[in-house]
Amino acid sequence: MAQKPSIPKGTRDFGQQEMAERNYIFDTIRSVFVTYGYRQIETPAMENLSTLLGKYGEEGDKLLFRILNSGDAFSGIDYEQFRLEGDSFNSKALSLKVSEKGLRYDLTVPFARYVVQHQNEISFPFKRFQIQPVWRADRPQKGRYREFYQCDVDVVGSDSLLNELELVQMVDRVFTLLGIRVAIKLNNRKVLTGLAEIAAVPDKVVDITVAIDKLDKIGLENVEAELREKGIPESGIAVVKEILGLEGSTLEKLSQMKGLFNGGSSSKVVSEAGLKGLEELEELFGLIDAAGVSQPVELDLSLARGLNYYTGAIFEVKALDWPIGSICGGGRYDNLTGIFGLPGLSGVGISFGADRIYDVLKGLDKFPARLGNSTRLLFAVMDADALRYALPVARQLRERGVSVEIYPEATKLKKQFDYAAKKNIPFISINGSEEIASGSVNIKNLETGSQQAFPTGDIDSILAFLG
Amino acid sequence: MAQKPSIPKGTRDFGQQEMAERNYIFDTIRSVFVTYGYRQIETPAMENLSTLLGKYGEEGDKLLFRILNSGDAFSGIDYEQFRLEGDSFNSKALSLKVSEKGLRYDLTVPFARYVVQHQNEISFPFKRFQIQPVWRADRPQKGRYREFYQCDVDVVGSDSLLNELELVQMVDRVFTLLGIRVAIKLNNRKVLTGLAEIAAVPDKVVDITVAIDKLDKIGLENVEAELREKGIPESGIAVVKEILGLEGSTLEKLSQMKGLFNGGSSSKVVSEAGLKGLEELEELFGLIDAAGVSQPVELDLSLARGLNYYTGAIFEVKALDWPIGSICGGGRYDNLTGIFGLPGLSGVGISFGADRIYDVLKGLDKFPARLGNSTRLLFAVMDADALRYALPVARQLRERGVSVEIYPEATKLKKQFDYAAKKNIPFISINGSEEIASGSVNIKNLETGSQQAFPTGDIDSILAFLG
Repeated sequence: MAQKPSIPKGTRDFGQQEMAERNYIFDTIRSVFVTYGYRQIETPAMENLSTLLGKYGEEGDKLLFRILNSGDAFSGIDYEQFRLEGDSFNSKALSLKVSEKGLRYDLTVPFARYVVQHQNEISFPFKRFQIQPVWRADRPQKGRYREFYQCDVDVVGSDSLLNELELVQMVDRVFTLLGIRVAIKLNNRKVLTGLAEIAAVPDKVVDITVAIDKLDKIGLENVEAELREKGIPESGIAVVKEILGLEGSTLEKLSQMKGLFNGGSSSKVVSEAGLKGLEELEELFGLIDAAGVSQPVELDLSLARGLNYYTGAIFEVKALDWPIGSICGGGRYDNLTGIFGLPGLSGVGISFGADRIYDVLKGLDKFPARLGNSTRLLFAVMDADALRYALPVARQLRERGVSVEIYPEATKLKKQFDYAAKKNIPFISINGSEEIASGSVNIKNLETGSQQAFPTGDIDSILAFLG
Repeated sequence: MAQKPSIPKGTRDFGQQEMAERNYIFDTIRSVFVTYGYRQIETPAMENLSTLLGKYGEEGDKLLFRILNSGDAFSGIDYEQFRLEGDSFNSKALSLKVSEKGLRYDLTVPFARYVVQHQNEISFPFKRFQIQPVWRADRPQKGRYREFYQCDVDVVGSDSLLNELELVQMVDRVFTLLGIRVAIKLNNRKVLTGLAEIAAVPDKVVDITVAIDKLDKIGLENVEAELREKGIPESGIAVVKEILGLEGSTLEKLSQMKGLFNGGSSSKVVSEAGLKGLEELEELFGLIDAAGVSQPVELDLSLARGLNYYTGAIFEVKALDWPIGSICGGGRYDNLTGIFGLPGLSGVGISFGADRIYDVLKGLDKFPARLGNSTRLLFAVMDADALRYALPVARQLRERGVSVEIYPEATKLKKQFDYAAKKNIPFISINGSEEIASGSVNIKNLETGSQQAFPTGDIDSILAFLG
């Protein structure tokens, strides 16, 4: 009895239609990246555990897929040393003994490792993108996989806000090309720091941002309650409310905030960090105006992603017409490569969520009707003569880039039509002794029913008919 | 002290230039596959070990990278049960206890698993290609990696020799497009069976083919010696020599072999298998003639790759102008999916060796001078005004598909020229107050030194100048 084949939980096969759709997303993203001078790199699936451990917090360490050392991994180990009690062992310590490598968990740490390892071959500012799968031993659930692609674009070695602008432009262009309406939301970590400073609770920046992140969902009153619960004094809450209550255009809001950060709030505290953040936002919005974008770009003070590592700009992109979380996000980090011994390199980058973008395109039915790569014309075959007759014509069409199939067996025409129908092949060519005698090919458009005969040599006319 | 970063032995980082070169190879191959109606799939990096074990022989099992079960992998195990002596343990048995998944070793077994698992969604004949990395715990050495890409194209569910023809045509077209002169070598497993049969040693087919595979290297006399050593009787050796001594064109050789396989050899044995193999080769060479190919296709009786699984056609491709082994190979297998419970599906496929093709293109200096994706134009920036001035022009050029960079800092021009030189950017645009006042952009071709000014609105002329 043969085994029934399956794949590991949380992993996926991508069939031909889904691959074509996914490639459409990746090709679109890639085509935009390269026009901005970003170029692709790839890093190995396996990294040394010493590269990965401790970079994603304790929870992240647990989610790493570890690879057993090859050869005799288990010998020479004193297992008793690792026994906790009964049959229970210290898996964490024991796994380090038998495993030195792990699968990459994201593209950011391998990128930092890459930059440090290859610093002498790279010219800075270094603009790279990377599209590769990552692996996480998360509990699989709807929309959460153990293997999924990340699609990251980053530049390191430049503080210029032009980089932030170009990321916004790339996001704008990608979603415009994909036909997805989005809102591009911007914030700045320094502004969040400033807000905590003028609220006179500089160590509560996380509590404050976590609370105001919920504003849309739970309303101002509940945000206030949460702040109170976190021990923010009433005076601090009043300052937060002052900021959240600002109205007007982005530039007007920025200008009012400048006043508040400059000692104009009820706490009278001046925040240098906050003022610097506002200056950066002002410059960035000015650059966005100068460059021109197609989709709305908004200041969003409640945007608080990656608070632990972002130090400047924070980005997030939401689809306007489909209910799903963020489909793209990122920010500026000031010391990415420090952990690997190369301090002082500032970087900024964003990551596109391919699976979610896929869901939005599916949900909105926005995939192009005719994705590349699918077969355009099928030569049906009634006998060996018809097969040989089709060969040179098929060859010429293929050399002109058309996807052509010849049905491999001289079988019933119905079966061949079924094959064309199942594969959505829009044109079929059936040639018998008459066509062969006259040197012509007969092509039928299966969608419209129109049919035409062409001399075998007239490839241009055939191409025009195939559209 | 920060750790010095490195990657696991036998793995590689691919930098931007190398990625562009590798993508050129993959894109070329892919562009040919799709014109023949082959479409891409992807399978997960991890497969269940039950899918992988026993498919690659005992040696292959040892070379699988195994993944530690996540969570508490090591508890609940009675280690004493696995102790051999002293600190030595039965790693094979123990690793099965703590590991249920492995990294894919090739693309063939996952493909077979895919076909069986998805048999009800697939329409046969099923034509697929797959380009993904595989992992093997081989000892790393020059040209042998622990992670490398395979690039496989296969069709299952059709016996027709049209499939073999199309594989030959695709090989021919790929290497013609890449500018690599090759010899495409064909053989047939049934002919090798026939040879052993008429040599009256039907169980010695492997010994015979291994010996004649060395003909080019060691000469006929040494091949004879090896056959003798393997216990082939003199009468059998005489038959092998008869076959190897055949002269003339491919069709002439096939015709003479037909006589020998039909009882005309000194053994008088008739080989039905051999005759069937010759018939297939004759038909295939006839189809190749009818379709037309650009590169030489040769019968090579010494071609014996994959003798354990191929059942019909055997393919191999050698570069004519660069000393390297086979750069592409494959064959027909009659029962690929039987191991997973779906017998009776015949398939045929080939695999392109991306790393070797890369080495040939490098060695022969055949990579195109201008690979896609590299930056065409750099806007140098002397102040904030020049930067903003460049933005709308850069945006329009990018939307027309040109790769454009704006230097992110207003720094010394020398530094910006150095950046252009290091990245091989052929055009630079420097705009000062004069250009801004007159609404023009000044572009210099760094290779020829020619320089021209364009109105900012005249994107078409700028595109023409950038070439």
